[in-house]
Amino acid sequence: MRGEILAIGDELLAGRVVNTTSSLAAERLLASGHTVTRITTVGDDPAAITECLRGALRRAEFLLVSGGLGPTSDDITNEVVAQALGRPLVCYPDVLDRIRESEAEGGGPIGEKMAWLPEGAEVLNPEGRAAGYVLEHAGVPIFFLPGVPDQLEDHLVHRVLPRLARLDHRRLHVRSRTFRLFGLSETEVNGRLRDREREDPHLSIGYYPNFPEVFVVVTAQGHDAADVARRFGDLCDAVTSLFGEFIVGIDEETLEARVGRLLSERGGRVAVAESCTGGLLASRITRVPGSSGWFDRGIVAYSNAAKVAHLGVAPATLERFGAVSAPVAGEMAEGVRRAAGTGYGLGITGIAGPTGGSRHKPVGTVYISLSTPEKTAAHRFAFPGTRGEIQALAAEAALDWLRRHLEHGSYVPGHRFAAGPAEGA
Amino acid sequence: MRGEILAIGDELLAGRVVNTTSSLAAERLLASGHTVTRITTVGDDPAAITECLRGALRRAEFLLVSGGLGPTSDDITNEVVAQALGRPLVCYPDVLDRIRESEAEGGGPIGEKMAWLPEGAEVLNPEGRAAGYVLEHAGVPIFFLPGVPDQLEDHLVHRVLPRLARLDHRRLHVRSRTFRLFGLSETEVNGRLRDREREDPHLSIGYYPNFPEVFVVVTAQGHDAADVARRFGDLCDAVTSLFGEFIVGIDEETLEARVGRLLSERGGRVAVAESCTGGLLASRITRVPGSSGWFDRGIVAYSNAAKVAHLGVAPATLERFGAVSAPVAGEMAEGVRRAAGTGYGLGITGIAGPTGGSRHKPVGTVYISLSTPEKTAAHRFAFPGTRGEIQALAAEAALDWLRRHLEHGSYVPGHRFAAGPAEGA
Repeated sequence: MRGEILAIGDELLAGRVVNTTSSLAAERLLASGHTVTRITTVGDDPAAITECLRGALRRAEFLLVSGGLGPTSDDITNEVVAQALGRPLVCYPDVLDRIRESEAEGGGPIGEKMAWLPEGAEVLNPEGRAAGYVLEHAGVPIFFLPGVPDQLEDHLVHRVLPRLARLDHRRLHVRSRTFRLFGLSETEVNGRLRDREREDPHLSIGYYPNFPEVFVVVTAQGHDAADVARRFGDLCDAVTSLFGEFIVGIDEETLEARVGRLLSERGGRVAVAESCTGGLLASRITRVPGSSGWFDRGIVAYSNAAKVAHLGVAPATLERFGAVSAPVAGEMAEGVRRAAGTGYGLGITGIAGPTGGSRHKPVGTVYISLSTPEKTAAHRFAFPGTRGEIQALAAEAALDWLRRHLEHGSYVPGHRFAAGPAEGA
Repeated sequence: MRGEILAIGDELLAGRVVNTTSSLAAERLLASGHTVTRITTVGDDPAAITECLRGALRRAEFLLVSGGLGPTSDDITNEVVAQALGRPLVCYPDVLDRIRESEAEGGGPIGEKMAWLPEGAEVLNPEGRAAGYVLEHAGVPIFFLPGVPDQLEDHLVHRVLPRLARLDHRRLHVRSRTFRLFGLSETEVNGRLRDREREDPHLSIGYYPNFPEVFVVVTAQGHDAADVARRFGDLCDAVTSLFGEFIVGIDEETLEARVGRLLSERGGRVAVAESCTGGLLASRITRVPGSSGWFDRGIVAYSNAAKVAHLGVAPATLERFGAVSAPVAGEMAEGVRRAAGTGYGLGITGIAGPTGGSRHKPVGTVYISLSTPEKTAAHRFAFPGTRGEIQALAAEAALDWLRRHLEHGSYVPGHRFAAGPAEGA
């Protein structure tokens, strides 16, 4: 079905809160075969909300309204809907009971405001605490959902999508896959795929920079499930053979999750030594549930003393080549691998900026090393961008190198920021 | 002036890319005294873009259109605008020259598509590479800007805002401040301020959960600058005295930046030892430019062996109390402080989940320790949420404890997740 999303809240127009909720809802709806044709964001302004609500009701087959259902004084959705659609607010005693329960359990005062809903509202989750409801108006189901992302997602998945599926007779079959690429620019990615996307009107290919990666999302849709599956399979095969080694993850599997899975499958473990990335690499690895199975330790050796004490970097190496150098990166990776007794060690040392650069080693110069019991290799990289971007690129490049090694046995990092094998390594 | 934003791109409706650009633009416009009344997001669909463009032109005094100006085949904004407003595409030779230059410098192939703009377009930055332009239509300036956040911000700040200021005769004076709070729920924050916001129609107070913090944004506006400044000052004073110790940062100053500033002012330095946060604490500290001045090292001691080797945690302590315990947190904080020779040490050990919890130490149990040469204190916390949320709360609570100590000399962390002084500490 074709629907629209209306997001309500001054905070969304003031730019302080990014509207992640609408994106999440749109993604879920698309994956279930629906199409979102418009997302409109308005403030806590009764006239504007009324106009948007009426406009969307004229165009859409269903409507999702998020935000403004909460207990605070700037939550006005229910009152405005009551006015705009001519449905006076009515007290829902069951909702009121749940509010009282929650207050009694120590959740703090909430107030009974959230129990007053527009006449005809059907509460979506009678057992839950969030006050989402559905209202059918002029034949169009309007779903009113909380603006908090996980509450919205919960309602959407368990209440809204099943209802829409029952209503929908012209449902499209949709297959979609996200390829996460690292090491190619968006233009390079588009260049390789440009001809492909013109071939078939049932297929679409989107390009989305998701720093430091580029996402390629391929979608196939149509009314014949088998046909959709065949076209989708062919396109995915084509993308896989075009980008092969640059694919760092697929769909929900992030680069760090893939590295974790590869290590786990081989019984391998890794330890990391970081300077300019300051813990970001370790933090990415340990975001993944179960990472204690493949991650032993990380040393954030910001000072030279820490590099010597915990990683066994030789003071003479620091003296001769400087802390930002290939030999130091190598000794960091090897040192942490030996200290941890793991099969893999990664080392990163560089200049994230904004200060600290020189003519020979400008801001963005980063040395990364991969160490295994067989070999320790180091590469110099020249990353562009701000401090945060350089840190993100360096952590990603190190993880990606380990992935390449685990998948292909390579000791060479493969992408456009690698400035060749490091001198003095 | 009152304006609207129109964001174009299938990726925004498919939910894969969150529309951060519109939020950024809205925030900048508000800070310059303009009001954004609506943000509309549509896909790469000529009919929908045309309808939205015409609707916004009827309502708004200015219009910002972002996205779809790039070189890839799904970038169709210029063609659609040409059709919708009856302005045929014309080749801009200066833009074409810059594209050729960029290609010659090794930026990869771009193609000349970006040089064809609707008739009457005025290129916003003739020296720049991004193809933003302005078109005046029926008396309404329409700014077409690239969808990439930093390119959009650059155009907005240096080209769009100065033009709007020249056009605007009824400009509002706006003062706004964001208070970043940690340790109170949104309802608690709202409860303390509820009466205050009803007093004065020139003031507004917004509440925005920005996990794990709650932001309170106070805004004063009016046509008399002195009056606005007075009301704004009074309101800020009131918020400061209401929330005092819970304010962890103001406006752009994050908690980690504030901790860095406080350490820097005192010549103090910190080192950290992390288990369940896996490097997140070190990563937050080192995001701040200049952090090498106050941060020495971080040890991500995931394994017990790492806790013993780098932090000097006694095997007997691990044996007797377990790795997730107050004594181990204390030995971690003290150990890293001694190893680094810094005045402050932070230690974190806990169970981030989703597995690993027990009846006495369920998922979310985290021990945090602050160590100084005078004293080492440890506290037990019970954090709710997912693995990522527990990690974020623990890193925030540790940083916040150090902030409280630096500001008030306290050895007690102050917030609702602290489950009292740790047993066995």
